[in-house]
Amino acid sequence: MIRRAYQKPMPTTYVTVPPEHADEIAETLVEERLAACVNRVATNSTYRWDGEVHHDDEVVLLAKTTDGAYEALEERVLELHPHEVPCIERFDESHVLESFAEWRAESIE
Amino acid sequence: MIRRAYQKPMPTTYVTVPPEHADEIAETLVEERLAACVNRVATNSTYRWDGEVHHDDEVVLLAKTTDGAYEALEERVLELHPHEVPCIERFDESHVLESFAEWRAESIE
Amino acid sequence: MIRRAYQKPMPTTYVTVPPEHADEIAETLVEERLAACVNRVATNSTYRWDGEVHHDDEVVLLAKTTDGAYEALEERVLELHPHEVPCIERFDESHVLESFAEWRAESIE
Repeated sequence: MIRRAYQKPMPTTYVTVPPEHADEIAETLVEERLAACVNRVATNSTYRWDGEVHHDDEVVLLAKTTDGAYEALEERVLELHPHEVPCIERFDESHVLESFAEWRAESIE
Repeated sequence: MIRRAYQKPMPTTYVTVPPEHADEIAETLVEERLAACVNRVATNSTYRWDGEVHHDDEVVLLAKTTDGAYEALEERVLELHPHEVPCIERFDESHVLESFAEWRAESIE
Repeated sequence: MIRRAYQKPMPTTYVTVPPEHADEIAETLVEERLAACVNRVATNSTYRWDGEVHHDDEVVLLAKTTDGAYEALEERVLELHPHEVPCIERFDESHVLESFAEWRAESIE
């Protein structure tokens, strides 16, 4: 039996970034083969900081990666991100179309 | 004990499509009772193809379906989608508001 | 061993709301410490109602909360939401950057 990378759960990484950093972070993750694809979505974020409620325009990056590349991707985002405590979350997919999973694994590993 | 459909995990299907196909695919999934609801979100996608990094405007379709309808929805998206290897991913919800889960199951099955 | 709140799975709550209610609901969840952060994303929703297919502009609220606060957040959204059967779904993250998880737990509990 050959165990293929795409048989493990495949994670989508959810990262919020300031709009002026979205291009660079998305491109770097794809160029360095840490993500096969990054979907960018415009968002407005409401959060509490120093006891005050703030609103900021941001971009959600949904980075399609593999189990094996997740930790390296998280570290790279931490290096590139301008904030000290960025939102970096992992959501595991319970199924992925097989041909897409293959393409994704080959784009990364 | 009656086992109801909405007691199984309910999946959200994450599909990316070219903007000009978003309307047709979203409507078809709802009309054919493969999804109770489809949320469309504008996105810009960064990916590698033939060794080059590309950027495309796309639409993310978040199709709210049931465990029982997931496979048929996946097959239908494959038929309607203009790409050979589309992004079709399944994310299972760990909880759904009960009245919404009931509405969703009734809209589909 | 100290068991910290952020070692439990952390949920993202996915809620769709009419655009004119998005501000109030997002702010209330953060002000009342039911969510550390709410990301708002514009969407167009396709769904079936009374046998007809409808399209509405809505906003997806992605509320970053904790396991302990999830039920209270769900109840509060039900009170504030103008619809009888709103879309309220829970997605558990399988990993969160530790410093972000700490900030999130402290913002809520």
